[in-house]
Amino acid sequence: MSPAPVDFYFEFSSPYGYVASRLAGDLEGRLGRPLRWRPILLGPIFKVTGQAPLTNIPLKGDYSKRDFARTARMHGVDYRHPDNFPIGTVAACRAFYWLDDRDPGEARRLAGALYDAYFARNRDIGKAEGMLQVAREAGFDDAALAAAIEDPALKERVKREVDGAIAAGVFGSPFFIADGEPFWGVDRIPMLEEWIRRGGW
Amino acid sequence: MSPAPVDFYFEFSSPYGYVASRLAGDLEGRLGRPLRWRPILLGPIFKVTGQAPLTNIPLKGDYSKRDFARTARMHGVDYRHPDNFPIGTVAACRAFYWLDDRDPGEARRLAGALYDAYFARNRDIGKAEGMLQVAREAGFDDAALAAAIEDPALKERVKREVDGAIAAGVFGSPFFIADGEPFWGVDRIPMLEEWIRRGGW
Repeated sequence: MSPAPVDFYFEFSSPYGYVASRLAGDLEGRLGRPLRWRPILLGPIFKVTGQAPLTNIPLKGDYSKRDFARTARMHGVDYRHPDNFPIGTVAACRAFYWLDDRDPGEARRLAGALYDAYFARNRDIGKAEGMLQVAREAGFDDAALAAAIEDPALKERVKREVDGAIAAGVFGSPFFIADGEPFWGVDRIPMLEEWIRRGGW
Repeated sequence: MSPAPVDFYFEFSSPYGYVASRLAGDLEGRLGRPLRWRPILLGPIFKVTGQAPLTNIPLKGDYSKRDFARTARMHGVDYRHPDNFPIGTVAACRAFYWLDDRDPGEARRLAGALYDAYFARNRDIGKAEGMLQVAREAGFDDAALAAAIEDPALKERVKREVDGAIAAGVFGSPFFIADGEPFWGVDRIPMLEEWIRRGGW
């Protein structure tokens, strides 16, 4: 029996989610368990928690912008704070889940391409058009994706994923859940590793 | 010349500040630099940032309560979530700074006694009376402290300390500032260490 996956929730507009996505491959190796990638939308989640995007919060906003770049540099990840930030990412989410149902490896590859375009190359992936263009450049069938993301069933699917994340207690990005145990933040990856290694404490 | 201190800001009602305080001695050794303890009041700071106490936030509140205990256990620190939480800690802050002007080592010892009483033994240190009783049991002159914390000059001093922390960008607890570089959270202690070891990156 293969080991149970660890859920890896992330928002495409989240700098810390981006950094976590770049660490995910090595992390799986160290954990000895696969990560199940689950993009989410912080907009509806912040409606539940009453929170605001980090960069809009006095004091915390300045710290965050400094810390995004510092955290990326620490991990050797390219980072250029996007001119348009934050953005809505529902189109990216839909494209991900549509691919995920067909080939999770391809969905993951799309996520990497979108994150890289937004956080390393200042490409706006918020609107469907920009997202699809990045997908096309990465070799995906953008016509198929364009049709899929307008499908009401897929829209409903993404809504269910976000509702499911909220029900599981997810309130930020990245967010990991291993055997029911939640870990929030890219800076909690060492704790997640230690938790799995020791079987909790 | 002795090495420049690293500022260590904390709120007496903050579980993560408490855990950080218990790690502070070893941390100084590893950093090769002294920590300058600066209690602050998150109430006035949250008025600036528009934030609320962690445990009051939907989803994040449940996570936080679980994480307080988990983080403390990870570091081998006793933790019992206080029945009365959060509390106002202005009396504790005033007592700390009054002692700090006379003997920083004694101020630090008082901080340890207050934190231990509140987070390990469920003693309410919010009201002046409860705070002074804990101080007395730890061998401090509670009559002198009781008089001092009513002194308008000391009240003004604490206000200035909090205003100064806000001006320095402090928005949470614990919060470290080393040579102008800010680090928020007990889980960022490894990054603070790495930053000082490497002289930044």
